[in-house]
Amino acid sequence: MSFIETKPDSDFSIHNIPFGIISTPQNPAPRVASRIGDFAIDLSALAQAGLFASILEDAQGVFSQPTLNSFMSLGKPVWSATRKHIQKLFSSSGPSLHDNKELLERAVHPISSVKTHLPANIGDYTDFYASKEHATNVGIMFRGKENALMPNWTHLPVGYHGRASSVVVSGTELKRPNGQRVLVKGEAPQFGPSVRVDCELEMAFLVGTGNNLGDSINVNDAKDHMFGVVLMNDWSARDIQAWEYVPLGPFLGKNFGTTISAWVVTMDALEPFLVNGPTQDPKPLPYLAENGPSAYDINLEIKVKPVEGTKYTTISRSNLKYMYWSFAQQLAHHTVNGCNMRTGDLCGSGTISGPTEDSFGSMLELTWSGAKEIQLEEGITRKFLQDNDEMILAGYCEKDGIRIGFGECHGKILPANK
Amino acid sequence: MSFIETKPDSDFSIHNIPFGIISTPQNPAPRVASRIGDFAIDLSALAQAGLFASILEDAQGVFSQPTLNSFMSLGKPVWSATRKHIQKLFSSSGPSLHDNKELLERAVHPISSVKTHLPANIGDYTDFYASKEHATNVGIMFRGKENALMPNWTHLPVGYHGRASSVVVSGTELKRPNGQRVLVKGEAPQFGPSVRVDCELEMAFLVGTGNNLGDSINVNDAKDHMFGVVLMNDWSARDIQAWEYVPLGPFLGKNFGTTISAWVVTMDALEPFLVNGPTQDPKPLPYLAENGPSAYDINLEIKVKPVEGTKYTTISRSNLKYMYWSFAQQLAHHTVNGCNMRTGDLCGSGTISGPTEDSFGSMLELTWSGAKEIQLEEGITRKFLQDNDEMILAGYCEKDGIRIGFGECHGKILPANK
Repeated sequence: MSFIETKPDSDFSIHNIPFGIISTPQNPAPRVASRIGDFAIDLSALAQAGLFASILEDAQGVFSQPTLNSFMSLGKPVWSATRKHIQKLFSSSGPSLHDNKELLERAVHPISSVKTHLPANIGDYTDFYASKEHATNVGIMFRGKENALMPNWTHLPVGYHGRASSVVVSGTELKRPNGQRVLVKGEAPQFGPSVRVDCELEMAFLVGTGNNLGDSINVNDAKDHMFGVVLMNDWSARDIQAWEYVPLGPFLGKNFGTTISAWVVTMDALEPFLVNGPTQDPKPLPYLAENGPSAYDINLEIKVKPVEGTKYTTISRSNLKYMYWSFAQQLAHHTVNGCNMRTGDLCGSGTISGPTEDSFGSMLELTWSGAKEIQLEEGITRKFLQDNDEMILAGYCEKDGIRIGFGECHGKILPANK
Repeated sequence: MSFIETKPDSDFSIHNIPFGIISTPQNPAPRVASRIGDFAIDLSALAQAGLFASILEDAQGVFSQPTLNSFMSLGKPVWSATRKHIQKLFSSSGPSLHDNKELLERAVHPISSVKTHLPANIGDYTDFYASKEHATNVGIMFRGKENALMPNWTHLPVGYHGRASSVVVSGTELKRPNGQRVLVKGEAPQFGPSVRVDCELEMAFLVGTGNNLGDSINVNDAKDHMFGVVLMNDWSARDIQAWEYVPLGPFLGKNFGTTISAWVVTMDALEPFLVNGPTQDPKPLPYLAENGPSAYDINLEIKVKPVEGTKYTTISRSNLKYMYWSFAQQLAHHTVNGCNMRTGDLCGSGTISGPTEDSFGSMLELTWSGAKEIQLEEGITRKFLQDNDEMILAGYCEKDGIRIGFGECHGKILPANK
């Protein structure tokens, strides 16, 4: 328990201790923070008071950076020690910061008063395609039932390179993209705003420590290279994507924006929620074979607030544990050819769809490519997103009375440029 | 003419004035340089002597950076003025640096004594697929004659996101990648070193000034956003690629390494070599319609030195002017959906194949997927690259007695990790 009160359904109990980047009205310089309940903890302020001297040589330098990259590059022992130390400092029992009112005032800010920023300088962003249900659903819609799941899919975690420049933090508004799309099958493409703007419910891990070009990361060491996990909305313009993606993959249908949540939940915090993932058949090749469980039981949700509506309606409930290929397998596969990962690289899971229709992770699947409608509040339905619609992805784990979560990954689709 | 002598066939006459990053044994800090003939010109040393005071407010700060990004972010008027100023400083007529022996000694280094570095901090790397001949050839081999060129290809410059972390500078040795490949059609994939390591003859432009997320770059302004052009070898493991690339595009078959040449040749230097590109049919949509010529007449060449051989043999001669979609169209397309480009982003042309068999830009095409052999020196042939083979891409323009070129883009394939 922390002396900072947290509600029972808070995503940010003292068991979490995520990391992120904040600025405040008094100090507009983005810097490293953690969060407990509805309060942001300014770690640069704590560092300035010398509270991390036992753990970090240059805590003030590391925590006054505008991204987590410096901190992440220090490696897992430092991440773990830092998180535990923060838990101790804010614990309700034993010696803690509780009585240092002056420092608490400088370092602890109501979350409503802080601005959150993109947590990392993302060098490269890769997106996988690791949910069998999603790959099958989309495959059927894009290529028909016979060609739905390609022969490679059960042998390796299929992935592709995404666009790092347009990864934005929760709360950023994005314009509806313009582009080429074929409105009538078989006819020439026309230029204009996408009429099929969709979400993809994903999670993503941030690489904490990478590998040199030419080296690989072993699948059973992979988790120690990951700093933490965020929610990710891989916004997709389905009409642009469908026209452009053959043969080199998605491009403008995706790179107009990708939103991640602001608070990075560490692998340490997630460890209690490790479970076995789906049975893999055929058996993965040795370089993908893992010892022990490596899926995470994380409840996920998509909520939409239509422009003409009054509230958010949940349109899907899924779970990260449905993902066929684990994060560790993704990282091992990504580097098996010697591809170098760098601190801050972002790897997305791909859309997390579950086995039932109400657990599909995109509107494309929920409406079966626009064949049916999603019911929101009374009298309001959607097939895809309309201008000024808002969306939130949420996620949390719960076990033995302990709950940790990811906050929200929020976005709003603005009208396209004329 | 420059008082620094250049041979008639030099790539680096005073008409060129490219930009790059060097370090020297006396000063191991990478910094901005230009090149004339066989000499590197240390611009930070010239700046320290005050020689750019009329052009740049903080020339010393900008030219002492380890990448060109600061300089590139200043925009085209500054790039143009800087290049002209260097031409004047090193001109053989009029007042120039000629007599300042002491400064010349500090700033001018024989090229053999300098180390060149990656010229830019590349935020995102995109690779296009803009040669119709290449797309058709590969399409036939990967998907058969009927599905060779996809319906979208003549409507838009097809492109995909590549891996920025593994872009390396000319001279870097790369390990043969390990990965999954199907050795016997229809059987399960096996893990091991790629047996089909190939080159791709490409050129690429570096974005000098970009656009904000949500904005676009007009096709007729696009050239002014480009800083310059380099040679690029998009190394490809064809067996890994063939197995993995459906449906999301190339991934591990490409991201083990991409080599670019060290000296960035500016758009200003290339302007005299503008020509009309191939006729585009159907007529491009308005956002891709250009006023005036925007192809470049640049002779290109692939040379291979086999491990058991004694010399480089030219295996292909091509030309950038064969490229169907221009660089300007690529940049306009890339941003038409609001995708933001940043200073230092790299955009590759895709393999530049010409219409004749001796102008194909990859070994895949030259050997027609391994069906025939490429003759090198007496008694030595290749289908794909063997361990310790070396390769050079080269390129130059020539017109009215003026020649400018790109130096070389060199690489060597080392044996795979065991």
